[in-house]
Amino acid sequence: MEVISYIDPAFYTRFGVHAGLFLGAIQGQATPSQMEYWIKKGAITLNGCTGCFAMTELGHGSNVAALETTATFDEITDEFIIHTPTLTATKWWIGGAAQTATHSSVYAQLIINGKRHGVKTFMVPLRDPVDFKLRPGVNIGDCGKKMGRDGIDNGYIQFTHVRIPRSYMLMKHTQVSRTGEVKAPALAQLAYGALIGGRVSMVIDSATFARKALTIAIRYGAIRRQFAPAPGKPETKILDYAIHQHRLLPLMAKSFALHFSGRAVAELNKSLQKQIESLSKGTSEQANVLESLKEVHATSAGLKAFGTWTTLGLIEECRQTLGGHGYSAYTGLSSMYQDFAIQCTWEGDNTILTLQLGRYLITCYRQFLKTKGKLAPGVQYMALSSAPFSASASTDEVCDPVKLAHAWGVVAAAAVRQATQEFESSLEAGLGQDEAYENCSVERLKAARMHYHAFTLSKFVEGISRAPAPLQPILQQLCQLHACNVTSEHASEFLAAGYFTASQLHGIQSRVMKLCQAIRPQAVNLVDSFGFSDYVINSPLGRYDGDIYRAYFDLVRQNNPQEARPPYFESVIKPILTSNYDTIEGPELEIDEALGSQEEDLSAEDDVDTPVSAVGRPNNE
Amino acid sequence: MEVISYIDPAFYTRFGVHAGLFLGAIQGQATPSQMEYWIKKGAITLNGCTGCFAMTELGHGSNVAALETTATFDEITDEFIIHTPTLTATKWWIGGAAQTATHSSVYAQLIINGKRHGVKTFMVPLRDPVDFKLRPGVNIGDCGKKMGRDGIDNGYIQFTHVRIPRSYMLMKHTQVSRTGEVKAPALAQLAYGALIGGRVSMVIDSATFARKALTIAIRYGAIRRQFAPAPGKPETKILDYAIHQHRLLPLMAKSFALHFSGRAVAELNKSLQKQIESLSKGTSEQANVLESLKEVHATSAGLKAFGTWTTLGLIEECRQTLGGHGYSAYTGLSSMYQDFAIQCTWEGDNTILTLQLGRYLITCYRQFLKTKGKLAPGVQYMALSSAPFSASASTDEVCDPVKLAHAWGVVAAAAVRQATQEFESSLEAGLGQDEAYENCSVERLKAARMHYHAFTLSKFVEGISRAPAPLQPILQQLCQLHACNVTSEHASEFLAAGYFTASQLHGIQSRVMKLCQAIRPQAVNLVDSFGFSDYVINSPLGRYDGDIYRAYFDLVRQNNPQEARPPYFESVIKPILTSNYDTIEGPELEIDEALGSQEEDLSAEDDVDTPVSAVGRPNNE
Repeated sequence: MEVISYIDPAFYTRFGVHAGLFLGAIQGQATPSQMEYWIKKGAITLNGCTGCFAMTELGHGSNVAALETTATFDEITDEFIIHTPTLTATKWWIGGAAQTATHSSVYAQLIINGKRHGVKTFMVPLRDPVDFKLRPGVNIGDCGKKMGRDGIDNGYIQFTHVRIPRSYMLMKHTQVSRTGEVKAPALAQLAYGALIGGRVSMVIDSATFARKALTIAIRYGAIRRQFAPAPGKPETKILDYAIHQHRLLPLMAKSFALHFSGRAVAELNKSLQKQIESLSKGTSEQANVLESLKEVHATSAGLKAFGTWTTLGLIEECRQTLGGHGYSAYTGLSSMYQDFAIQCTWEGDNTILTLQLGRYLITCYRQFLKTKGKLAPGVQYMALSSAPFSASASTDEVCDPVKLAHAWGVVAAAAVRQATQEFESSLEAGLGQDEAYENCSVERLKAARMHYHAFTLSKFVEGISRAPAPLQPILQQLCQLHACNVTSEHASEFLAAGYFTASQLHGIQSRVMKLCQAIRPQAVNLVDSFGFSDYVINSPLGRYDGDIYRAYFDLVRQNNPQEARPPYFESVIKPILTSNYDTIEGPELEIDEALGSQEEDLSAEDDVDTPVSAVGRPNNE
Repeated sequence: MEVISYIDPAFYTRFGVHAGLFLGAIQGQATPSQMEYWIKKGAITLNGCTGCFAMTELGHGSNVAALETTATFDEITDEFIIHTPTLTATKWWIGGAAQTATHSSVYAQLIINGKRHGVKTFMVPLRDPVDFKLRPGVNIGDCGKKMGRDGIDNGYIQFTHVRIPRSYMLMKHTQVSRTGEVKAPALAQLAYGALIGGRVSMVIDSATFARKALTIAIRYGAIRRQFAPAPGKPETKILDYAIHQHRLLPLMAKSFALHFSGRAVAELNKSLQKQIESLSKGTSEQANVLESLKEVHATSAGLKAFGTWTTLGLIEECRQTLGGHGYSAYTGLSSMYQDFAIQCTWEGDNTILTLQLGRYLITCYRQFLKTKGKLAPGVQYMALSSAPFSASASTDEVCDPVKLAHAWGVVAAAAVRQATQEFESSLEAGLGQDEAYENCSVERLKAARMHYHAFTLSKFVEGISRAPAPLQPILQQLCQLHACNVTSEHASEFLAAGYFTASQLHGIQSRVMKLCQAIRPQAVNLVDSFGFSDYVINSPLGRYDGDIYRAYFDLVRQNNPQEARPPYFESVIKPILTSNYDTIEGPELEIDEALGSQEEDLSAEDDVDTPVSAVGRPNNE
């Protein structure tokens, strides 16, 4: 799946809504017999069953608990009636629904005897797998053109009293009996554990697409020349300009930071899933598992949000470094931006995810203050003292990545402290918990951002030690570049906290430029090391062999066969060109001599005088 | 032209390459007789002459002086021979070339008797205006799909020894005589004056598109509800969340700042063009005009760069605030991003323009130090003392926009000073001027950014005084919001300079949030005041009447007629769905009772067992 995602994000999504979301819903929420049933029905082989995941509605995305689609139990027939009661209840953006899916896992309000029991998941057949006709009561249309990923057929679904057997509700957690009794799950939160995998894969995706974008931009920058240092000299490669290095190389360092933190959160998740498994065998304590779940949920939420934002910005910056060629649909980065942009919204809107992380950080810090007990591994920094760095320390000391990682812990702790103070002063003013969280949302987002950078930098520092020894020097340089760059970008935090002096920060900023110069000779080797083939890169400007202009020109020609004239020539262009067209003479020149006897080559064309056509010139009266 | 640009950026460009660039080249560079000739030939009426502007080549964009296309004088026939000597000399991205233009203003190296005289402009016929056939030696193709603006037909042009009469070289500035003598212009720089208008209009465009994007995002935010404050209560409008206000309202304030600075630079340019005119009448001094030219050129370059970057980021932020709906092609912001993105590159790559502004600032400052003479109106701040603000000043004092505008002058001056010091230390180390500028390019860019914010804020402050009295209170609030926000975003500069204390800056940051709350009740009125009709907004989510969901759904349906099955059903989907499809039973439930006698509705479909088609399942062995 990951490899497919590098090559064709749209097909990856199309495949993923079945194999990831639809199957994932079954795996996470079906009983063993239900799972067996759906597997026999073809959910894995695709024979007779291709699925989509119908959660989002026209009117509700983030607030899943308020979805409007209803699943009303009919005890007489032992069925659920799936229904779309309003326009805004229309299932929307459902990938695979428009043209592919025979079945859907539908998220709907469970209603029994007029009482609501919350949102549950129901398997609803959409189309006959033989003739592909829509099932009675199912209305489906295409959501149509999008910013990108048009290879996935997002559709809308409306249900009009569609009946399904009771056994089509997925009942691993909540169960509904023949008589309509509801048995709630013991540990509802564990169901969220299944969502984490998707976010982890998006962090890894962010690192991958960052590398792919950088491969194109760096290789182009190492071939493209513009402006000569002196008349007669060859023009300079644009990647040899300080400003170009300053645009791209800190982004290269960021892509490594994303890589190491993606790996770290994947490991966290792996260990969490093991804990959850062992919980069902009774070998692990519930409270511990819930703590881990909260930590991994919050960490992956924050990494997903800041990681996708980082990569989206990185792709656009790389695109702009291609100059005008970055605007072409054939050079890889405009479509990459358009395909990637949705990552900031789906599987949790980024802003909301950052606020969730912020909420978790406040909770951790308050618990720490109350109990002075142990902090979760990812938030150890909250115990750091805020004593300033030695003001007499040299630039080399200040720029040490290990020391900067520590510094980031200090400012992250300060941001969490500030958010917590805002939160508590709202509580003291008599507000409820939700209002108090709302009142400190800007501080929460900031705390989440600082946490993200602290986490990411520390994982970069840690990750290097596990790399093969010959790679460590260049990784050390990249890590230092990342540390200095991200510190420069947030210099105000370090100054406001009094942690570094202004002159120390100036030293860090200057180090960014020096490191860019130092890494420049390795820049092409670094993107080569990412190991993408030309097929995966799929951009003439990012070719391994550097023969960019010929490849680009050929690609444009192949995709745009030359035409003698556009199809609308007769109807639009000709009437404009040929109206009131008089014979005229060539110009006199105001220079020291008259024009020669040279006749104007084009005079033959001047005699035409075609009448104005009404079509295409309505305003030419 | 401006109104067209609001509605359809692609058509605006298509029209603009003729009316702005092609005609502009004639106006700016033709002699009076040449102008008369081309007007008679149809350059204004479009009869027999639609033009394109062939400057950029595959291998050269910013470095116009190094264009490779040649125009070689043939004294025997009194002609120029226009030629494309290499692949990279291919004219590229030429708007209007692919399907529309009969003529082109071609920028090419003037060569006479083997000697190069620099890049000049030549009128080259491309197609016969009657049958639209390409002229002999002209090869044209379409550059094909782009990130956006596909309504403009960008093409490539290759010339193979195309002959034009000598009089087709535009000779207002440089003149070539019958015998090949070259007369250079007295004041070559004045030719650049014509470029400024395009940049000024892009600053105004930036403000306009910012307003259009905000109209959609603000109106949607005032209708969309998500999450209820308590069970049973209506959900909250997303624009009532602090975080949503914090995302959008500072951008609203930025759009006003862009508006006032766009107006200011338009006035500067108007007065410059008057000066240039009066210069030709001998009523104005050449040195003064050149000084003004330099100032307006640098100012407009910086505003174009930072203005287009600001608006591109603003559009993306607005797009993301629409959640998943922002990814739809029907809601206005994804296409706005794609159409707008090229503004950061064309008519001067943004990064290069900022460096030009930085160079101008260093020049001004060095001249000021040398002569202690007067500073140009736009850089008066360079004389400001860097004494810190009173540390005991209240938050109200600190947040006063007039005082913040002064503060911005102080930090802008500091940034210019730092860039100048870097520049001079390179000179002292024996480097040449160009190398010294290269060495301080990161500092130059920073100085340009600080100058931009100082300029923009001061123009916002000034602009309010000219507004009608009833509008002044809300404009004051917006101006203060902008001042506090942009100061928060660059807090490190004020801290590093010791100008504000950390607690004063904290006060400024908190003021941003308070102003967002204060402006929130006016947010919808403000976007209404922009006066865009629903036709111009062209987004169901930005409708004036707020009936967004119905309009959005209808638009999606209209654009995507429902189909019984996709065209590839028989070839792709059916073979997958119908292979190895066995009859299976419904699942057992592991709950306290067996399933009822309810038969599964869909059992009829389970008997089909269609043979596997080779097509579409090649790997299913």
